[in-house]
Amino acid sequence: MAKKKYAIGVDMGASFTKMGLVDNDGNLLTSATLTTTAYKTVQDFVAELCMQIQLFAAAAPGEVVGVGLGAPNANFLTGAIDNSANLPWKEHIPLRDLLMEQLEFNVAVTNDAKAAAKGEMLFGNAKGMKNFILITLGTGVGSGIVVNGEIVYGHDGLAGELGHIIAKPNGRPCGCGRRGCLETYTSATGILLTAQKIMLANGLIPFQSSKEITEAAMIGNPIALEVFNQTGKVLGKLLAHVHTVISPEAIIFFGGLANAKDFLLVPTRKAFEEELLFVYKKSMPKLILSGLQDKNAAILGAAAMVL
Amino acid sequence: MAKKKYAIGVDMGASFTKMGLVDNDGNLLTSATLTTTAYKTVQDFVAELCMQIQLFAAAAPGEVVGVGLGAPNANFLTGAIDNSANLPWKEHIPLRDLLMEQLEFNVAVTNDAKAAAKGEMLFGNAKGMKNFILITLGTGVGSGIVVNGEIVYGHDGLAGELGHIIAKPNGRPCGCGRRGCLETYTSATGILLTAQKIMLANGLIPFQSSKEITEAAMIGNPIALEVFNQTGKVLGKLLAHVHTVISPEAIIFFGGLANAKDFLLVPTRKAFEEELLFVYKKSMPKLILSGLQDKNAAILGAAAMVL
Repeated sequence: MAKKKYAIGVDMGASFTKMGLVDNDGNLLTSATLTTTAYKTVQDFVAELCMQIQLFAAAAPGEVVGVGLGAPNANFLTGAIDNSANLPWKEHIPLRDLLMEQLEFNVAVTNDAKAAAKGEMLFGNAKGMKNFILITLGTGVGSGIVVNGEIVYGHDGLAGELGHIIAKPNGRPCGCGRRGCLETYTSATGILLTAQKIMLANGLIPFQSSKEITEAAMIGNPIALEVFNQTGKVLGKLLAHVHTVISPEAIIFFGGLANAKDFLLVPTRKAFEEELLFVYKKSMPKLILSGLQDKNAAILGAAAMVL
Repeated sequence: MAKKKYAIGVDMGASFTKMGLVDNDGNLLTSATLTTTAYKTVQDFVAELCMQIQLFAAAAPGEVVGVGLGAPNANFLTGAIDNSANLPWKEHIPLRDLLMEQLEFNVAVTNDAKAAAKGEMLFGNAKGMKNFILITLGTGVGSGIVVNGEIVYGHDGLAGELGHIIAKPNGRPCGCGRRGCLETYTSATGILLTAQKIMLANGLIPFQSSKEITEAAMIGNPIALEVFNQTGKVLGKLLAHVHTVISPEAIIFFGGLANAKDFLLVPTRKAFEEELLFVYKKSMPKLILSGLQDKNAAILGAAAMVL
């Protein structure tokens, strides 16, 4: 029997930072949570984080191969965070360097979507796949792409910004300064806006969250179902074009909106298949849900970076 | 000094098949041309091709490492040609198997755009690049994509069909059965159609080829310049979105229309930069011409597959 290896996975978020000790079979052995906003400076935060990492490492029943950290806007190639809209510290944060000053482990830093893709490949529904796209449907829309068995970083670490491909020319205004980005329709905020528009036009009290839309769909609310149809149509149509670039075996949905399961998947698949170029129809890719949705995916994905 | 290696590159086209003996510095030592249409069956064609390959191999001053063949619609993973609109033989052609029955060399078969990308990486303007897109602007529009230093085939060998991403919803009808594909605007046929529409609307005798448009642009013809502006705008805008998928270091233009050089490149770059998501503006990719345009690129690219 091969000896087990261990890694520490860190899911750094604007409000909370979750972390855990993970083995190479994807089991989470122990975990902890830091309140990200409780630290005045990033140095204070890193000091506490490193102390916790050392505690986990000491508790590991075998070799610890490293620390993987996923964070919004973190760049694998530079190991730094820039342009983070939500973190309490606004400066350039050379996170990997800060961690490596205090730790003797191998440290990898990347954005949350790329970490999730790595986790999906090691522990989830992309086991054995060499070419797939994981798309995160959360507050924003991001993606982690795998080609020839490796994460695609691009020359600058910024590959996979699928949320900012234009889905509708001159469509909804986007935080990036342009209009009609995929994210404005298929993020949690985007789908809520779609619902609110329909409901206000019909004199109804609009849903207050994307979760409410899913719950309404579950009891057959026709507006909620229509909202998922419209959202899936935008998503499937755009993904059919993204497909032509790398022709993946699967497109995997992850994040809050993916909890809607078939309410989202069915119309997305329909639009995808209708829009897809004929040459791909013999080798139709699978559109499926993440296998890590309910399993501390972000911590597992971060740990997978170094496992 | 490292010993030189040699490969035989074959550029199989609907009318002619060009082939040559190539060394690992990208020198073409000797070449020959077969008339593809002169053979009643693909077996006859392969027999003649293999005889010619044996002659080249015998003439090589050192080790021959293999045979690379590029052909429209050839699939690297299956080694076969399917759906070829233009070849004289319409059946499924298991080309790699047919060649390997008669040859003792390593044989690689792929489509022409992927072979060109490989050639560009070994001998052209992508030397040392790990992430780039080569886009072929010829009778059709295709692409060869390189990620992490490797050609992207996708799970089915069909990655890189950028010519069939929709550039204009409900736009020009495309041979694939859909409307508005990039290819209908930025192929040799597409640009000619753009020119003819403008000229007929103005009571002028339209250009008869894309080459004529380039020649007219060179002497300052305002319609030809406007046609390149419109074409570059469509191309640059779409490439800005493709860029977000893999974030390449460069996008390289290859094929007939690329001979127009700055007439096409300048408006393409302008539209690309205007449309590009802000996060990429610090690490702006290079939009450049192929380094192999006038150098038997297709033969070199095919040979590069095995070198």
